[in-house]
Amino acid sequence: MTITITAFERSPDGGKGLARDTRVRWALEEAGRPYEVRLVSFKAMKEPAHLALHPFGQIPTYEEGDLALFETGAIVFHIAQGYAGLLPDDANARARAITWMFAALNTVEPPILDLMVAKILEGDKPWSKDRLPLVMDRIRDRLKPLSARLGSADWLDGAFSAGDLMIVSVLLRLRMSGILDEFPNLAAYVARGEARPAYQRAFADQLAVNTGKPPLS
Amino acid sequence: MTITITAFERSPDGGKGLARDTRVRWALEEAGRPYEVRLVSFKAMKEPAHLALHPFGQIPTYEEGDLALFETGAIVFHIAQGYAGLLPDDANARARAITWMFAALNTVEPPILDLMVAKILEGDKPWSKDRLPLVMDRIRDRLKPLSARLGSADWLDGAFSAGDLMIVSVLLRLRMSGILDEFPNLAAYVARGEARPAYQRAFADQLAVNTGKPPLS
Repeated sequence: MTITITAFERSPDGGKGLARDTRVRWALEEAGRPYEVRLVSFKAMKEPAHLALHPFGQIPTYEEGDLALFETGAIVFHIAQGYAGLLPDDANARARAITWMFAALNTVEPPILDLMVAKILEGDKPWSKDRLPLVMDRIRDRLKPLSARLGSADWLDGAFSAGDLMIVSVLLRLRMSGILDEFPNLAAYVARGEARPAYQRAFADQLAVNTGKPPLS
Repeated sequence: MTITITAFERSPDGGKGLARDTRVRWALEEAGRPYEVRLVSFKAMKEPAHLALHPFGQIPTYEEGDLALFETGAIVFHIAQGYAGLLPDDANARARAITWMFAALNTVEPPILDLMVAKILEGDKPWSKDRLPLVMDRIRDRLKPLSARLGSADWLDGAFSAGDLMIVSVLLRLRMSGILDEFPNLAAYVARGEARPAYQRAFADQLAVNTGKPPLS
């Protein structure tokens, strides 16, 4: 069955790979699943046809036969379920990999989303400059224990998993802030994620949408 | 095998049920699984023994035989996997219920967490009063489409699921703000969640820890 995902017709980040379709593309590339992409405009995202697929009017969505999903974490989980390279077969190792997926999205990402709010949505507010250090410190409160747990390992729990895919994806949002440089093992971990051929293909494909250049063959 | 979770020795909310162990207790009660609770102090949460279980030094954790998990979403998912009353057997319905779990934690909860930040961590800042309406509007940006999707249904996708458990739990954080009253169908949805006997038992048990009164028998 054909897999179809949605992505921004024009990503707000201009193709830096931070739009959430990159996470889904990466998982599909890891799993070796071909897929098609339907691009949606900001206007179309808020219209009934797209809202039927995604109640919050966002991307990505995922369609495969009569299954329609929204929410990146759920889509990546769905893809990962069928591929031991993203979720190990051993039940306990699998539960731990899923734990890192949820930790990425509910423990690590919220303060990072707050940085986006502070810089983009509230960048012109009078409190912007004074508030930013507080936001950054709350991000450090997450990165410090994450760095301690990773230590000198390549990945968070044995082999690369969907948990690493999601943690790396969340940390990538911090590249421009420079804060990752305070945690060299996390910076190296993110670089390992980006170096994976599956990530390279996913990144190139989302970039091609935004630049009009052809994707990697 | 005995299930042991951790909870605050003394919850910051004084037993209003907003600490995340309530979500895990609720799932365990729905699934009819007995469990034990180990209470941890704020000090002990940051010590090596607890950090080995939970790298971010939080509660809850979950131990069952040689499986140790942290992160509420992952724990609730683990409990739900074995119980069709939380995750339906039909593969597509199951994927959709999981979608609502992730949507609760990564789409609906982040702006609600920001309200906690605004009120508690930044309540004494000079920008607190001017910033609050922006935070509230970002919450409305989530509640409005959620309300539209729920419509007049009892639950988000057919029968009650772990997705509802998680969305209700996230919305419960908003009770004090009054914002739920702007969306009567969401307020009624939360009330339906709270009325479930499993929630009632979970709530009473966490309250008993915080008041010293005996739990419901």
